[in-house]
Amino acid sequence: MSAAPLPPLTEIPADLVAVEDYLRRAPLHLPAATWAWLDGGAADETTLAANLAAWRALELWPRAFARVAGGHTRVELFGDALAHPFVLAPVASQTLLHPDGEAATLLAAGVMGGAAVVASQSAVPLEILAARAHGPLWLQLYWQGRRDTTRIQVRRAEAAGCRALVLTADAPVAGVRNRAQRAGFVMPAAGGAAPVLPALTEAQSLVFDGYMAIAPDWDDIAWLADESRIPLLIKGILHPDDARRALDAGAAGIVVSNHGGRALDGAPSSVAALPGVVEAVGGRIPVLADGGIRRGADALKARALGADAVLIGRPYACALAVAGALGVAHLLRLLREELEIAMALTGHATLAEAGMHALRRS
Amino acid sequence: MSAAPLPPLTEIPADLVAVEDYLRRAPLHLPAATWAWLDGGAADETTLAANLAAWRALELWPRAFARVAGGHTRVELFGDALAHPFVLAPVASQTLLHPDGEAATLLAAGVMGGAAVVASQSAVPLEILAARAHGPLWLQLYWQGRRDTTRIQVRRAEAAGCRALVLTADAPVAGVRNRAQRAGFVMPAAGGAAPVLPALTEAQSLVFDGYMAIAPDWDDIAWLADESRIPLLIKGILHPDDARRALDAGAAGIVVSNHGGRALDGAPSSVAALPGVVEAVGGRIPVLADGGIRRGADALKARALGADAVLIGRPYACALAVAGALGVAHLLRLLREELEIAMALTGHATLAEAGMHALRRS
Amino acid sequence: MSAAPLPPLTEIPADLVAVEDYLRRAPLHLPAATWAWLDGGAADETTLAANLAAWRALELWPRAFARVAGGHTRVELFGDALAHPFVLAPVASQTLLHPDGEAATLLAAGVMGGAAVVASQSAVPLEILAARAHGPLWLQLYWQGRRDTTRIQVRRAEAAGCRALVLTADAPVAGVRNRAQRAGFVMPAAGGAAPVLPALTEAQSLVFDGYMAIAPDWDDIAWLADESRIPLLIKGILHPDDARRALDAGAAGIVVSNHGGRALDGAPSSVAALPGVVEAVGGRIPVLADGGIRRGADALKARALGADAVLIGRPYACALAVAGALGVAHLLRLLREELEIAMALTGHATLAEAGMHALRRS
Amino acid sequence: MSAAPLPPLTEIPADLVAVEDYLRRAPLHLPAATWAWLDGGAADETTLAANLAAWRALELWPRAFARVAGGHTRVELFGDALAHPFVLAPVASQTLLHPDGEAATLLAAGVMGGAAVVASQSAVPLEILAARAHGPLWLQLYWQGRRDTTRIQVRRAEAAGCRALVLTADAPVAGVRNRAQRAGFVMPAAGGAAPVLPALTEAQSLVFDGYMAIAPDWDDIAWLADESRIPLLIKGILHPDDARRALDAGAAGIVVSNHGGRALDGAPSSVAALPGVVEAVGGRIPVLADGGIRRGADALKARALGADAVLIGRPYACALAVAGALGVAHLLRLLREELEIAMALTGHATLAEAGMHALRRS
Repeated sequence: MSAAPLPPLTEIPADLVAVEDYLRRAPLHLPAATWAWLDGGAADETTLAANLAAWRALELWPRAFARVAGGHTRVELFGDALAHPFVLAPVASQTLLHPDGEAATLLAAGVMGGAAVVASQSAVPLEILAARAHGPLWLQLYWQGRRDTTRIQVRRAEAAGCRALVLTADAPVAGVRNRAQRAGFVMPAAGGAAPVLPALTEAQSLVFDGYMAIAPDWDDIAWLADESRIPLLIKGILHPDDARRALDAGAAGIVVSNHGGRALDGAPSSVAALPGVVEAVGGRIPVLADGGIRRGADALKARALGADAVLIGRPYACALAVAGALGVAHLLRLLREELEIAMALTGHATLAEAGMHALRRS
Repeated sequence: MSAAPLPPLTEIPADLVAVEDYLRRAPLHLPAATWAWLDGGAADETTLAANLAAWRALELWPRAFARVAGGHTRVELFGDALAHPFVLAPVASQTLLHPDGEAATLLAAGVMGGAAVVASQSAVPLEILAARAHGPLWLQLYWQGRRDTTRIQVRRAEAAGCRALVLTADAPVAGVRNRAQRAGFVMPAAGGAAPVLPALTEAQSLVFDGYMAIAPDWDDIAWLADESRIPLLIKGILHPDDARRALDAGAAGIVVSNHGGRALDGAPSSVAALPGVVEAVGGRIPVLADGGIRRGADALKARALGADAVLIGRPYACALAVAGALGVAHLLRLLREELEIAMALTGHATLAEAGMHALRRS
Repeated sequence: MSAAPLPPLTEIPADLVAVEDYLRRAPLHLPAATWAWLDGGAADETTLAANLAAWRALELWPRAFARVAGGHTRVELFGDALAHPFVLAPVASQTLLHPDGEAATLLAAGVMGGAAVVASQSAVPLEILAARAHGPLWLQLYWQGRRDTTRIQVRRAEAAGCRALVLTADAPVAGVRNRAQRAGFVMPAAGGAAPVLPALTEAQSLVFDGYMAIAPDWDDIAWLADESRIPLLIKGILHPDDARRALDAGAAGIVVSNHGGRALDGAPSSVAALPGVVEAVGGRIPVLADGGIRRGADALKARALGADAVLIGRPYACALAVAGALGVAHLLRLLREELEIAMALTGHATLAEAGMHALRRS
Repeated sequence: MSAAPLPPLTEIPADLVAVEDYLRRAPLHLPAATWAWLDGGAADETTLAANLAAWRALELWPRAFARVAGGHTRVELFGDALAHPFVLAPVASQTLLHPDGEAATLLAAGVMGGAAVVASQSAVPLEILAARAHGPLWLQLYWQGRRDTTRIQVRRAEAAGCRALVLTADAPVAGVRNRAQRAGFVMPAAGGAAPVLPALTEAQSLVFDGYMAIAPDWDDIAWLADESRIPLLIKGILHPDDARRALDAGAAGIVVSNHGGRALDGAPSSVAALPGVVEAVGGRIPVLADGGIRRGADALKARALGADAVLIGRPYACALAVAGALGVAHLLRLLREELEIAMALTGHATLAEAGMHALRRS
């Protein structure tokens, strides 16, 4: 890892055949500190590990001789028909990973017929990305400390043609990212304005009197849902009561997420939390899930548990680092093919058909 | 693994005393890519690992001072008396493993008094193998895309004197065999004609519009069971509802199998699925099981769960690679001796006596 | 480990960002035998491992958009307002770890606004430590074999201004510290007088006729609670019935503890025992817990299970070895920050708000 | 392991402080094949591993301030007062382990006030061992194929002053000892006469028509219990129904055992089986347990589950290999001290006081 990073590839080697291969290869193409930031999670990374283990532990029932000819992996979300349920999660500052950064990511997402969420801490301005997008863009948003400053971001997203807003709920303070800290990773300054923290006395807490003093409450969320002309998703909901509150506040969608194990270590895996949220939501708005998706079959498992789509983060970020847009597109193709095979072997012609019956209860 | 493969042995070294020894030794006798194909499973190989772990986790009750003198390991299947319950599963293209290929396998199976399933993708024509067989042969069959082309294979099997047909249910599309892909394994072209896929447009799916468009449905299976003059087994059933459908369609036997962990990764282990199938079948037709059998005692455990016999794949394929017919025969002898010891120590004079009482419920 | 120990650091390197980093670094600064004593536990260290695993296995529910601005980590214990719930557990002979020994520990504890328990086997006399203390001191006490000799210690503690007594209940005989034994660790003679064991015949047992013959019973504990003018905590209670007896005997507090896995190997983890003690105590006196606390979030988990505060031992002992008072203070700061973040992300403005609802039941 | 074995030690190094240390050191003093025989178990050694894991998984409740002064570890078995509950299990051909063989073992057992079981395949004749014994001897017995030949052994045991007979129930055929087989271990011919197997045809089974044809049934056991003038223990009972049958047959004691994981791999651990046997026996005769005892506290756990004493095998065999009688005596002293400490810390003055209340139910 101490050698200089390799340049990105311009074609896909024959032995890159699964997400795992991109995860294995990515550190060769990145500085060690960047890799620690990208791959690491919070604290002891127990939630990060739980995310992965939980999907793997779910068992699918193969079904014989089912009629699935003509099936497909399509989903419709917020008015857009997507070719597959793999939405690209917001990842900040993607030029750290590849010179083409977010532009390459969005090119690949569009070519493969899917949606992508642009991080508010994007390395390229939203307007430029949106102008060149080939598919539906959603904008990830952090609360900007006040309603008026937050409104500015909403208007930008609407003006740029974003199809949805994705408000991050689970990181009003940053998680304890020990791996990145030990590697000395420093996030480069973002272009946009950051929320202004209150001035603190020596005796005050940066967490309770700083970050949390400018964090939103549910009234702010209701205001935001009302203010926004495009659907508002809340990302980072795990507790069923929060799902109910999001519904009450007017959210148009929920992303069950623990921030990829990067926020609160010790949080439940997304698999553990998903059924409770699905039950609380009762089908009134779409529920998405992320965290630990590494195989096409995981999207089928997520659908069986009630998720309408899934987000992937590290997998495509690694593919971006390895081979730019080509890598991201290849990765999406691998996932979609794996999903098709899993659907065919479990007797599902469409994702809509999947439900709890697809999973073995052990 | 980069050294040239060793030639097969012509005698059995003293330290080959269990299946595991053959598994350990086989890669020395095979090209790395062939080994990756033989030993690997689908995707993350979780089902492959689950198969092994599940048999090991079952606990047998030793019983003291039981009267088992004169006992035996015999089973009767489809009219044939077999000396033991270890049926050789279909393994394709066995000349990849040993120059004598399927001929060596069948020689060993016959000498040891057991049955073997010839793969439809055999390296040697069925008729030649059948003419030289020393014991009952069953023919493994893939659906040939249409009834007329499938009927041709049935007639060949009947004409060759096969005692049963074994239709593969769990692989209408190939699993995601990442380990073999990474190793660059390419299966040599089979001699026989392959089913013809429909022509596809760019927008169509090779899975849903190609392979699954020519896959059979349960009506086809009922037709096939009716058409065949020899018993039809369905291999690759895990869900109890599929077992009921197989019964309804006229199947003469069921093989509870996840294709040795090579089809859908995330499928339940055969141990997990076996009791449900046994209950659904209710004794009306024989139920066999495969996947992860590595010890003679596993056949007793399978019998305790309701299986009439077991299939082994990798173990004998490895023995073939290590020492040809001699290796396969030796392996079968080891398994039968282990089974005898397990039966004696648990107080079973015959396999028919075994049932759930033989297993400790934990 | 065979190289000479490094001298303590005088500033904190940037890669020391968590308790775990101090645990990793401490052995570089200590003789191997001292490390074996400090880090090791009893026998097979199963309880030691269970302590760690049990906190990790608890899952916290993140909560979105909760109002926690102005929150804090303060607790009040025995009349003292503490800035955080991390009490420094008694660790003997701290000059083995750093030249400044207990003085450094107490300096750090005081600066960070917390309490500390001085071991009766302190390397520095209690009176000297107390005179220089910056915060509340509690004195750990072993029963001295008789009431009169024990009373002397009580009076010393009271005279020195200690705020509480902490009687060790779980080590009337030393645990089987195999790791320290194998490393040849010998505890240096303590300054104070040790209890006198009865003279034994050859046939008598050092355990039953020696140590246990001078151990206290519950009547002695009731006497001690009555005799002491400062609150008496009993440290090393795990069984609910013992918690009830401690209440009956007049204890002012209970520390749920297995002596950091150093007394009886095979004892339950403190997490496993905590709920039963909390239920038995029913809020009548404070309950503290120790053993395996490695993250700020663990204090929140402990609070959710009903503990009013937690004790840490090895973590600060390692920080002391690595960087003296600076290290201990830094460690306490890390823990408090982690706790603040965990509280903020789970929606708790104060520890008092936390309860079982904060934990996911799995 | 390929170096020549070290000679036995004549004093105990300071770092041998637990059973585990003897297990670690023994292979240095033995030929590799002898070690494979001694340390190995049957097949995949899952039962061997389960034995160890099961004792470790049991949790003991520490109890505070209990009155245990004057306590002891004594047990009475078959009329003999033993200083501790650690009975030495039968181990064959002990001169393979140390030149002094069984003589050293019995010397140590006697000096430490305990009982020992002499294997019928002892390297030294029973009469010579018995003449020099310092404590109660029990004789292990295999059924000799017929009642008359078995009676001869019984009479020898009685004449030699043995205090009990221990009939092995769980090994009418030898287990599949793969580790010993791979190492090429060959047991030297025993001095005494072995049971004569019937002549077999080619088609007959060595297991079913050989060994099991001369194995005893329960009628034989009843005959033996009646014939013997000293108590008859049945060793190798796991199933409760067999325990009832042993009672009916007149057994004076039962040893819950899976032959140290050397007979049927996949058999339950002795811990798993013990409660069922204890319940079936209902206190009418003593129940002993063996398999995986590695700590003094394990004897307390066994007592809590209802066992009157425990047998140890590999531990003392290793101690014998390392340091002869001195090693075995030292090992017994370590175990007794560990047991005393465990009893003291859990509040038990005698083993008779222990019961299920001593264990935490998880």
